[in-house]
Amino acid sequence: MNVVSVADILYGYISKNTEITIQGWIRTRRDSKAKISFLDIYDGSCITPLQIIAYDNLYNYKNEILHLTSGCSVTIDGIVSASIGMKQRVEVIAKSIKILGWIENPSTYPITAKNHTMKYLREVSHLRPRTNIIGAVARIRHTLSQAIHTFMHKQGFIWVPTPIITAYDTEGNGKMFCVSTSKNQKALHNSKEKTNTYDTHNFFGKEAFLTVSGQLNAEAYACALSKVYTFGPTFRAEYSNTNRHLSEFWMIEPEAAFMTLDDIIILAESLLKNIIIVLLKECSDDIKYFINKIDKNIISRLENFTNIKFNCIEYTEAIKLLKVCNKQFNIPIHWGTDLFSEHEKYLSEEYFKSPVIVKNYPKSIKAFYMRLNDDNQTVASMDVLVPGIGEIIGGSQREERLSTLDQRLQENNLTQENYWWYRDLRRYGTVPHSGFGLGFERLMIYVTGIKNIRDVIPFPRTPKNVNF
Amino acid sequence: MNVVSVADILYGYISKNTEITIQGWIRTRRDSKAKISFLDIYDGSCITPLQIIAYDNLYNYKNEILHLTSGCSVTIDGIVSASIGMKQRVEVIAKSIKILGWIENPSTYPITAKNHTMKYLREVSHLRPRTNIIGAVARIRHTLSQAIHTFMHKQGFIWVPTPIITAYDTEGNGKMFCVSTSKNQKALHNSKEKTNTYDTHNFFGKEAFLTVSGQLNAEAYACALSKVYTFGPTFRAEYSNTNRHLSEFWMIEPEAAFMTLDDIIILAESLLKNIIIVLLKECSDDIKYFINKIDKNIISRLENFTNIKFNCIEYTEAIKLLKVCNKQFNIPIHWGTDLFSEHEKYLSEEYFKSPVIVKNYPKSIKAFYMRLNDDNQTVASMDVLVPGIGEIIGGSQREERLSTLDQRLQENNLTQENYWWYRDLRRYGTVPHSGFGLGFERLMIYVTGIKNIRDVIPFPRTPKNVNF
Repeated sequence: MNVVSVADILYGYISKNTEITIQGWIRTRRDSKAKISFLDIYDGSCITPLQIIAYDNLYNYKNEILHLTSGCSVTIDGIVSASIGMKQRVEVIAKSIKILGWIENPSTYPITAKNHTMKYLREVSHLRPRTNIIGAVARIRHTLSQAIHTFMHKQGFIWVPTPIITAYDTEGNGKMFCVSTSKNQKALHNSKEKTNTYDTHNFFGKEAFLTVSGQLNAEAYACALSKVYTFGPTFRAEYSNTNRHLSEFWMIEPEAAFMTLDDIIILAESLLKNIIIVLLKECSDDIKYFINKIDKNIISRLENFTNIKFNCIEYTEAIKLLKVCNKQFNIPIHWGTDLFSEHEKYLSEEYFKSPVIVKNYPKSIKAFYMRLNDDNQTVASMDVLVPGIGEIIGGSQREERLSTLDQRLQENNLTQENYWWYRDLRRYGTVPHSGFGLGFERLMIYVTGIKNIRDVIPFPRTPKNVNF
Repeated sequence: MNVVSVADILYGYISKNTEITIQGWIRTRRDSKAKISFLDIYDGSCITPLQIIAYDNLYNYKNEILHLTSGCSVTIDGIVSASIGMKQRVEVIAKSIKILGWIENPSTYPITAKNHTMKYLREVSHLRPRTNIIGAVARIRHTLSQAIHTFMHKQGFIWVPTPIITAYDTEGNGKMFCVSTSKNQKALHNSKEKTNTYDTHNFFGKEAFLTVSGQLNAEAYACALSKVYTFGPTFRAEYSNTNRHLSEFWMIEPEAAFMTLDDIIILAESLLKNIIIVLLKECSDDIKYFINKIDKNIISRLENFTNIKFNCIEYTEAIKLLKVCNKQFNIPIHWGTDLFSEHEKYLSEEYFKSPVIVKNYPKSIKAFYMRLNDDNQTVASMDVLVPGIGEIIGGSQREERLSTLDQRLQENNLTQENYWWYRDLRRYGTVPHSGFGLGFERLMIYVTGIKNIRDVIPFPRTPKNVNF
């Protein structure tokens, strides 16, 4: 028998009158006078369910089919047919319906057809991919991830798996998780007693942490292979319980030799627009689902994003705009302070009403590795701010001049010894190079319009939460 | 000016007589009577260097060009020309050569044109991508990774980023790294004193670890979206200083609802063959480089791999073969023991002389989640063994029957409470499902023939080593 997916049937890859087998789960069941039942089936291949027609001549119609509830798993043999109803183009007339798994006590099944709050769904993160909304999120995330790999590949970038366990604090803020081995390596679930003794030095020979960025390592590869990118998990041990922060999140970090700040600004804009064009094309039904549920303007918002030229302004200009706008900010702003969420939102949502790139921030608020500009006050850095989110990308040209790098290390109380290999990249055939980091989950909340970042990653890790 | 890559020129995308700019690093310089110099340039886009012809009429010929050494970075404007020499089809006649970065003290440059040992290169992991061999490894890894994403996507699998930080020990062997926060969160590099106090419970509210597998989480998504896969880092806190073990490595873990053990055996074979076909096509020059350096039979070995049907035998049959082979093993083998490296190698290298799949291992040596066979003694598991490596893939059909799962949890001293959400997948619309894990770096050593796994990942993490 020809085993196919719901998408295969609904998107027309299967001709009518073909005998097929379909495997999935019941979304809903409607009965008509107990002589015919309409089963909506999903299997994750697309958001639209497939309608199955079950007549009462099926041997298990009364005893089983009339008892099917949302979430039951089934294997159905049937024939693809033109639908008589108006809701769908094709449906499947069942020849047999085999029930694989029932729902234990359907009245207490945590995922029913009714709408649940996103907060409630987080408590059943193992079951929430069965809902329409989280299923759509999963397909959108997959499509964006594929589009990113494809785009980077076509641009000549090589994927580099930079290390997760590291001895370096790239961002220099010390908000890192420590990695250690338990002194008495007991399996968690076997031990009743808590193992509170950790051996931090023994395994790796020095203190080890979870990476906050693959950038420094990616630079080593860019200084040999020209164009590289990372796509992997990164970590922040910050007690931030906001709807924009995760302790564990994924980042894409392109790093390119011979590129200047302006080159990576072009790359960033091109990457974002390109992957959203792919998304609109390949996930149109999933995106349409969000119109009613999340953001009625989602399609025009995303189409607009791909069509407009991003605004690009100097940090100094941004400060001027924020000072003259007569808006009361919680955190006062002046030249030399970092932009906070409220400032970023004003710029992108109220002033420009579009994505905006702010560049050349003061060196005092940026990391040691950013290239010092000729004014000696600012560094060749850039942030991409988008409406509704704020910063989605942060990047810079890297300091390629050894003497300037050494001066910046010193200003940041960092030692040359610790960064010996990073300095080597400047001692031996140094090149101008630049890169940026794109927070994958920030991108997800931007494209979907979903409010809380915990809902765009399968199993979110946040303070006090390492469930599932 | 038209900025292009070495590959653009060598693979013929640029017509002759085109004016181009090329940016890269010097591999070698040869001079002919100080009137003309031949510079071999690399930029990471391919293994073959581009020959640049520099005549002595260039303004900096004597003062700069004649002093160029391996590793110097340059920007060259020139014209693509048919080569007079036999070694290459095209070359570039330089109109200007701008030196971007010199080599500080060339006689001590760690990466010279001469051959270094792989062990030595590990000590300069930040510079080793500049060598031909590690550059080739990077392109091969990228090509395989892209091929895996593309293959899985075409098969209808959705990429799922399963969590890195977890409270679960999927394999049940307790060899996990602990994740904690330092009690006095000091930036590593700023603090002279060691911070030896770790707060293991406070941040996440319970003990947290680095994942050994994304499987349990992937199962939750497969039981909603049918076909999913992970591609991410996994960790083992094992003191294994072998050439096949890393503390941090990448795994691909497909997980598919409605698939049986035999279905994923077909998937595994198809995945491996497909990505190697892509590799042979897209990285042929990199692969050819390995003929002289690593494995003279690499191409026939890989082509053969894609052409033969894998052998598939029962564990029970494997034990019989190992018992009658008259070979002295260090670890004696009998029904009920696990296969060790020497046994796996005998089967794939000596007996079958080809990849071999061993299936249906005794339940006593396998994890709780594998599906119990009708004999009550074995589980529906499979390992793919390849010559030179041993196990490259391990997989199984998962236990989808709640009562059997509960029995297996009990036999393994695991509590139902701890696995409440994993049990839910069986309580609500359970389905047969299967999956496997493919170790990405094991795959890399198989395809390249490189002996030590530390040489196929950019910055290896092993006991006592968290450098770079």
